[in-house]
Amino acid sequence: MPISKASASWEGSFKEGRGVMKPANGAEVPFSTATRFEGQKGSNPEEMIGAALAGCFSMALSVGLGSANAPPKSIRTTADVTLEKVEGGFGITSIALTCEAEVPGIDDAKFQEIAAATKKGCPVSKALAATTITLQAKLVS
Amino acid sequence: MPISKASASWEGSFKEGRGVMKPANGAEVPFSTATRFEGQKGSNPEEMIGAALAGCFSMALSVGLGSANAPPKSIRTTADVTLEKVEGGFGITSIALTCEAEVPGIDDAKFQEIAAATKKGCPVSKALAATTITLQAKLVS
Repeated sequence: MPISKASASWEGSFKEGRGVMKPANGAEVPFSTATRFEGQKGSNPEEMIGAALAGCFSMALSVGLGSANAPPKSIRTTADVTLEKVEGGFGITSIALTCEAEVPGIDDAKFQEIAAATKKGCPVSKALAATTITLQAKLVS
Repeated sequence: MPISKASASWEGSFKEGRGVMKPANGAEVPFSTATRFEGQKGSNPEEMIGAALAGCFSMALSVGLGSANAPPKSIRTTADVTLEKVEGGFGITSIALTCEAEVPGIDDAKFQEIAAATKKGCPVSKALAATTITLQAKLVS
């Protein structure tokens, strides 16, 4: 498995500077103090963390469902990432995942069991173990 | 500070399915089993994690340098993210940051001290505390 690559840059001071994040095989994502801390429209590192977790969780859920002989038709996951002032600076204090999945041939109890295990065990969840991750999962048809 | 949002979707089984990650204010980033595990050109959640960390680190470094009365002209950071087979599945086992910064009026010792503190204390680093993060930082002119 190759090493995955990404980069970022920052030009200027914290207050007046501007940054760009770049997954090696994805588009540039600009950010600034205003888009991270002041609610100005635009992205920030928390959106990238949320996208990584939502993506990893959705893919891993397809593994768990497949192992239960219920491969999904589709999975939609959103991530709401909270950055707050904490002791010594700022911290990502929680990530709320909401998932809707169309999965033929599975009952809700089994689905919830697999979704909960995926939330705990997917690679990005494990890397983010220092942060509280919550999950609301729902079967849809 | 508003909550940051992102989403992802996955269509189909793990082996044959396809996914898309989407920071709310960034472009769609497609991924698949092949682009995550088999070296096919394309992105994956690890690239998004690397971009988030490189971005957060670079911005936070501008804060630390500013506090030392040495605001940076520019900072360039790359992140190499290693995903490996571990007990019970896969895990993000390490992230290697490499940073080059143009910072007028600072000596290397002070710069290295601030860079090391930033690696430890930036919000995304703290959220990824379960993963080993290494840093090579270099002053350039």
